[in-house]
Formats: sequence, C-alpha cells, structure tokens
Amino acid sequence: MDEPQAATSATAATRTLRLVVEYDGTGLAGWQRQDGQPTVQGWLEKAFRQMTGQEVLVRGAGRTDAGVHAEGQVASVEVASAIPAIGFLRGLNCQLPPEIAVLEVADVPAGFDARHDSRGKLYRYQVWNHPVRSPRWARYSWHVYDPLEVHAMREAAAVLLGEHDFRAFRSSACDRTNTVRIIRRLDLRRAGALIALEVEGTAFLRNMVRIIAGTLVGVGRGKMSADTVAAVLAAGDRTKAGVTAPACGLTLVKVLY
Amino acid sequence: MDEPQAATSATAATRTLRLVVEYDGTGLAGWQRQDGQPTVQGWLEKAFRQMTGQEVLVRGAGRTDAGVHAEGQVASVEVASAIPAIGFLRGLNCQLPPEIAVLEVADVPAGFDARHDSRGKLYRYQVWNHPVRSPRWARYSWHVYDPLEVHAMREAAAVLLGEHDFRAFRSSACDRTNTVRIIRRLDLRRAGALIALEVEGTAFLRNMVRIIAGTLVGVGRGKMSADTVAAVLAAGDRTKAGVTAPACGLTLVKVLY
Repeated sequence: MDEPQAATSATAATRTLRLVVEYDGTGLAGWQRQDGQPTVQGWLEKAFRQMTGQEVLVRGAGRTDAGVHAEGQVASVEVASAIPAIGFLRGLNCQLPPEIAVLEVADVPAGFDARHDSRGKLYRYQVWNHPVRSPRWARYSWHVYDPLEVHAMREAAAVLLGEHDFRAFRSSACDRTNTVRIIRRLDLRRAGALIALEVEGTAFLRNMVRIIAGTLVGVGRGKMSADTVAAVLAAGDRTKAGVTAPACGLTLVKVLY
Repeated sequence: MDEPQAATSATAATRTLRLVVEYDGTGLAGWQRQDGQPTVQGWLEKAFRQMTGQEVLVRGAGRTDAGVHAEGQVASVEVASAIPAIGFLRGLNCQLPPEIAVLEVADVPAGFDARHDSRGKLYRYQVWNHPVRSPRWARYSWHVYDPLEVHAMREAAAVLLGEHDFRAFRSSACDRTNTVRIIRRLDLRRAGALIALEVEGTAFLRNMVRIIAGTLVGVGRGKMSADTVAAVLAAGDRTKAGVTAPACGLTLVKVLY
C-alpha cells in the first residue's frame, strides 16, 4: 500500500463508504461474523482494522448463508480515515483471502445503509442437470440427475410472481412476522445441462430462494405441478413445499437501490 | 454399483474403451501418473483397478500439466471385463474424487489409441483483465491488471495461424525434434473483463498454448507488436517470445478425431 500511516490520524472526519463485494462462498461460513469462522463480514472488518487501526461495523445488504456466493453483494461502513477510496480498494484486496474481493469502493452521503436502503435483490440459482456430475460446475450448482422438464418449471414459477405471503417458502428458523414479499421477476434458462433460475424481489425470507429452487426442481421432476405450487402458496405450509436446495447453487448477483 | 463381481472373471474378452474426461486441475498434479501425487491418469487407473481388479494403462490424448483443466480430455483403455459401458460410467464416477468425472464411456474397435488417433485439439486460455482479481474466475483464469488491447492481440494472433516452426513457443524442457505444427484457428473474444483465447491445432509442443497466451498478453499490454511476433516466430528464439502464462487459465476443451 502507498498510503501513509498518518492517514489514519484522529483528525480524519467520519465518512460513509459503499463497497461492492464478490465472493466464492464454498469455504466460507456465510456473510455474518462468527467467532473463529471464516465469514465475509469478519474478513472485511479485519481488513479495515489492519488498514485504519479502527474497529468498524461492515453492514451487508444480504446476510448470505454458508456456502452461498456473491457477484455483487453491497456493504456500507463508517470509517474515520483520510485514505482515498482507491486506496481502500487496493488495500482491502491485499488483506482479503483469494475467495473474497472488493470490486468497488465509493464515498457516499452520510447515513447510507446497504441493508435498509436496498430496494431489491437479484439472485441466481444454478442446477447442473445431467446424469454425470460436473467438476467445473460442482462449486456453483446443485447436481440433479433426473432430466427436468423446464417448461413445467416455468409454468410453476409464474404462480410465484407478484405479491404473496411466502410463509410456505421460508426456513423454520425464520422469525419474521410479516411474510408478504414481492417477486418481480423469475426467469428460467437452460444452456446445455445448466439450468439457471433468476429471481428478483424486493426482499426475501430466510432460505426463500433455495426453497423456491427446490420446489421448482420438484415440479421439473414431475413430483409437483403448477397447481400444487399454487395450493402450497395459498395454504402457507412449509412442509408441503419442496426441499431447500443446496447453498452452493445460489449466488447473490446484484443489490438494487 | 449394480455390477456383479463375477463380471471380472478371467473369461471376459479384452475390450477397448474410449473415455471422455472432465477435470478441475486446480488441486491436481496434471494428467500423467506420478507416485504419491494426485493425477488424472493415476486416479483413473485406480478406479479401474477397484472395479475390475486389473492393472490397466489409461492413455490420454493430451498430457496436461499440473493445474490445467479439461472439459473434454479423451482417453483409451484396454480392459478384460464384461461390465457394460454404462456400468463403467457409473462405477468410475463413484471412485473418482469431486474434481474428476468421466462424462462418457463407449466400446470402440480394438486398437483405438486416444493419443495417436487424435487429429487435433482445441484449447481455451482465459484472462481476467480487470484492476481487481475475481474470486469466481481465479481458478480458471490468469489475472492481468493492465488493460489489454484486444485488437492488437488479434492482429498478432493472425501471424501464428497456419503451419510454422513453433520452436520459439515451446518449453525449454520440450525434446521434440520436429517443431513444425499447424494452428487451424486462433480466436480471441472479450466478454466484460474476461478474455478467452481459443486455439485449435493438429498437435502442440510443450507449453505452446501457454507461451502463445503469454506472448499475446505482451502484445495486448503494448510491449510487443504483431511484427515482433512474426520476427520471433521466424528467429525461433524462445527467449524473445512472451512469458509462459499460468496453468490455471488453460483448459483442454476438446480432442478431435
């Protein structure tokens, strides 16, 4: 790093920074800091500590689970330092492990909060649908052996579009009282053996995208229909929806503001 | 596995099998068997041993270096067993580690040799051309910070097309006496920060694709021109060509027959 240590002197004014973060979640215990575990928040806070000598709180827009990846996670942090944004970009990346990188650092108006100010998120869930597992897609997809009927999956996906009470599509550990959410877009694309589900919504309940993916795979296997999915949504019964698809298939693509 | 052990009885006739193999080379010591090292050939031969009780020789079309990946490596093997091809496909994949998978197994006429019968190979070399490293592309690309001029790289690539003596583009450890090779196709595509170089040729000298990639990156950086590359090719001097690009960026895409 080129920045002088004096840049961290007590006279520096408090600034708010907005970070865009990419990570391969394979070996990580998720976003949220946990003692003794490799987490994205923990690594970022450590990197700031190493650069500024300060204890900071890095707030992420989405608290991704262990094993989930991100191409464009957004985080906010308040820091009292004169280090320019480009200095943070370079310095943080030197301190972070190979599986985490900060793509952008920008000064933003005081009070910006990556989580509360977000207007939506785009997630992608990938399924490797082939009789043989794939070494190159294993880290980033769920391997489903049985041939999936993508047309039926699209029909069922349409049922979930719009504003609904998604309490059938959340983890039993989710404690939100308001379970109404809006799904703005739900696209399914197949390219060879790879099926990609893109879900954009205002906000998501815990495990919601993974349970949607598990349910749509159930439909693709012929175990459920679009009508069943509509009935599950109406009944609000988690036990009637599909399995929670594995974390490795999920990527937080983008946070919308 | 469903196959009975009796399938490996001494009465089974010798057959020749053709395998298509995919691997993530990150943690592997390359194709070629080496004592105590995780290699693709070593793993495949061990898997055959576990299934048939026989010591077999698995011959690969290309002996990829440590760290190099494959989407479609081809191998041939002679085995005296009545296990059907689909049984080998399932059984081998159960014995192989996550980074190696057999995509296809087929009975082929006796005498088929994956290496000698090959008419060509297609390789892809990927460069992540961005100021910030990428966690999700790190395993499969070479990170080049400086912005590359792809147009200049294409011009230099055109110089290498066709039949030439490629002795300037081979490892000093390469001991081939005939160094004339034919490059049939050499395409460069940029998608965002990812630059993909595809090279198809009859056969390649040791490290040839990686030295071509290193040389073209030198051109993209403005350190060399298409004219320099033509002069290097004509002089046949390895020390004048570019660096050997890192193994992680290279993938054996396909073997042609």
